[in-house]
Amino acid sequence: MRLLFIHSDHLEFEATEEAADGLGETEGVPMDGRMEDCVTVFISVESDDAESIDGVVENALAELDDVTGQLNTTDVVLYPYAHLSEDLADPDSAKTVMQDLEAGLEAEGYSVLRAPFGWYKAFEISCKGHPLSELSRHVSHEAPDEEPEDEPRAPS
Amino acid sequence: MRLLFIHSDHLEFEATEEAADGLGETEGVPMDGRMEDCVTVFISVESDDAESIDGVVENALAELDDVTGQLNTTDVVLYPYAHLSEDLADPDSAKTVMQDLEAGLEAEGYSVLRAPFGWYKAFEISCKGHPLSELSRHVSHEAPDEEPEDEPRAPS
Ligand SMILES: [Mg+2]
Repeated sequence: MRLLFIHSDHLEFEATEEAADGLGETEGVPMDGRMEDCVTVFISVESDDAESIDGVVENALAELDDVTGQLNTTDVVLYPYAHLSEDLADPDSAKTVMQDLEAGLEAEGYSVLRAPFGWYKAFEISCKGHPLSELSRHVSHEAPDEEPEDEPRAPS
Repeated sequence: MRLLFIHSDHLEFEATEEAADGLGETEGVPMDGRMEDCVTVFISVESDDAESIDGVVENALAELDDVTGQLNTTDVVLYPYAHLSEDLADPDSAKTVMQDLEAGLEAEGYSVLRAPFGWYKAFEISCKGHPLSELSRHVSHEAPDEEPEDEPRAPS
């Protein structure tokens, strides 16, 4: 799973068109929404995540706790995003992961806005611009201490 | 090189803080800017791009021509973005690629707003939300016909 965190003054979206017939989520998610002063998390669920959805969700929740703790917020937008990986999971696994992340965060007391999978969406986002306002992480279903260290990122 | 194209109602940025001492561009680029009704191109220059900067710039310009032609615009924001790849080029190569892309587009008559490399930046972007409004491409310095076909992308 690839995660891109943007510390945002706001994120707003509106679903415009189903990306393929029958693909788009229609239940349990809003077709539009807006959140202020939040962390927006763009998420690509990857093919090997499907081997252990519970494992990758658990590890992703730990990363989310870490990042939201650094940014001192409990308001989170979960936004499915295919463009962070070239090795995407099948759509059913991806939807399950997104749903499980939402349930896990809500169980921990977070306020969550989740954008629907499988729709083209208009959006507007602002990024605060401080040094921690853009972070990316790679999470697998393996135990975190088996994972390689984050590689250093050249800033841009 | 990884390219993420967002067909945007607007893109606005402001440099806030140099990411490391001496790293940030300060000449030939504005420290803030805004463009309306444009294509925003988020760009990660990758390590193997440094093997032939002229080659990768030429191939990236061909992709830019293709995408801007589909979207019927000649207004382009070039935005350096480290989070699209885990195998980034050295900063000097990345800056040269960004500068050469700008010069190449301007020589073809495009209006270009280029965001500075090496700075943390606040930004706001809107995405139009039609089916072609988000596209990603991988470009190398090899001739395009040696490259593999774009892999199909599951929408999200
Ligand atoms: Mg210029």
